[in-house]
Parts: sequence; structure tokens; C-alpha cells
Amino acid sequence: MKWTSVDLGNCSVLRALGVIGKPWAIAVLREVFNDVRRFEDFQQHLGVSRSVLSRRLNELVDDGLLDRTPYREDGGRERYEYRPTEKAWGLYPVMVGLMQWGDRYLADGDGPPVHLVDRRTGRPVITALVTDDSDVCAPSDIAMLPGPSLRTLPDGG
Amino acid sequence: MKWTSVDLGNCSVLRALGVIGKPWAIAVLREVFNDVRRFEDFQQHLGVSRSVLSRRLNELVDDGLLDRTPYREDGGRERYEYRPTEKAWGLYPVMVGLMQWGDRYLADGDGPPVHLVDRRTGRPVITALVTDDSDVCAPSDIAMLPGPSLRTLPDGG
Repeated sequence: MKWTSVDLGNCSVLRALGVIGKPWAIAVLREVFNDVRRFEDFQQHLGVSRSVLSRRLNELVDDGLLDRTPYREDGGRERYEYRPTEKAWGLYPVMVGLMQWGDRYLADGDGPPVHLVDRRTGRPVITALVTDDSDVCAPSDIAMLPGPSLRTLPDGG
Repeated sequence: MKWTSVDLGNCSVLRALGVIGKPWAIAVLREVFNDVRRFEDFQQHLGVSRSVLSRRLNELVDDGLLDRTPYREDGGRERYEYRPTEKAWGLYPVMVGLMQWGDRYLADGDGPPVHLVDRRTGRPVITALVTDDSDVCAPSDIAMLPGPSLRTLPDGG
């Protein structure tokens, strides 16, 4: 199979980037993978305007990456929570791979902000190429621990 | 560790995207991971102008993702080959993860254009989250096989 004879018109890599190649899409997915669910929490943590955030969340719902479900707190009006779909979780290894690479080549001198470990064994978790019969970690197996360059926000978020 | 208290200013994911988040950067890396080395081959396969390609290759050299090395064919003038650096190969699992996700959610009805298998065992290769003591596949262990939706270019590239 000669690579330069391959028609790139249906390349899955570029199709994937067409959906999630925008930094803001990755930033929102990073939040939902870390259990952020509510509009106000996204807004405060990402520091974007309500209108921009609203548009971005809607776009990710339309792309099938977020599920929007209503909730209501005591006496309050109905609001919405955003949860990652199975399709979104399919990108979690890609995001961890980007993080690892950034940790290795672009982190500050004192090291990465966070580490991922397997809750069952305490071993570091990595994104890697493996055969499909390998023992893979589910997202629920993975814990995030503070790394040397973690900084927290002054008001505690 | 409360995620919404984490200062995102040094997020490794977004730093990584700052370097390789552009679709054209991923497209060039896809070519070099598939052994494309020469300017004319990139140009023909990617279908971009010489000036645009030249600027992109230079940017990837500046970012430490490609090594440029001179070569000379019989009687010809000196030209350059582009090879992926170790830093670039660090993104190979990310690219395969994007491909897999695109194959699953965005491929044409007849299936993915290509498959990756482990040359040693014939098993499918996937990008996955695993502990760091797992048996990982090196790029040289991986073979690309034609998939059901592979199309080739009329002149054979």
C-alpha cells in the first residue's frame, strides 16, 4: 500500500479535527471530563461570556458530545446540566495524550500541573498504542493527583 | 482536589493544542508518519502551493517536530528531506486516537479507510489509556492495512 496514492478525502484524522479541533471544544471537554456540569461553573472556570459559552455548549450538544438534562434546585427555576456522552468519552484518551505530550515538551520547569494514576494500583496512567486485547483503564479507574506546578485560584473557584 | 479551583493558565492540553491544533500541522505529521519525506511528495499528496507548504514545513521545523536534512540525487542539486523528530513521534498515539474516533463516529457507511495492526501478532492496534507498565506498540511494530473505504488516486500518486 503506497501512502502517497491514498486519496485523503475521507481521512478520519481530519474529520475528527473538524469536530473537535478547536481549542475551546477541547477546553469544554476537559471541564466535563473533570465533572464540571453546570453553566455557572463552566463560566467561572473558563472565564468566557455567557453568550459565548452558551453558543459553544449548544454546538457540542449538536455534535453529540454533550447531553443536556434539566435540573431544579429547591425553589429555583429549571436549569440544565451538561454531561459528556459516550462519543465524548471516546476522546478522553486523545485528551490525555495531548496532556502528556504537553507535560513532556511544554510544561513549566517545575513539572506538570496534574498526574493521572490508576486507582486500583497507584501506577501512572498513560495514553499509548497497544493491541486491542490489552488491559485498559476506564475513566472511572483514573484519579487525578496534584502535580508540582498546580496552582489554585485565589477564591477557591 | 477541586477541579474548578485549578488555575488553567498552565494547562498542558491547551499548550499542546497551541503547537499542533491546526489541521494542517496534523496533516503534515500524518504524511511524515507514513514515510513521506520529500517536498514534491508532500505537495502532490496534500495539494497545497509550494509557498504555503514551504512555510508550514519551516514552522514544524521551528517547533522541533521535523528535522530537515539535505540529500542529493545523481547530478541534481541539493534538496531537503523532512523526518519526524522524537517530539513528533510523541504525538503518534494522539493521531491514531483521533483516527479511531473519526473511524467510529465519522467514517463513511462502508467503514474506515485504513486499519492498523501489530506486525508481531496481527492484532488490531488501538490508542488507549493503560498503566505505564503495559506492553506498548512502537511505531515500527505497526502496519497499516487497507480498509473498506480506501480510495486511491487515479495516477497512483
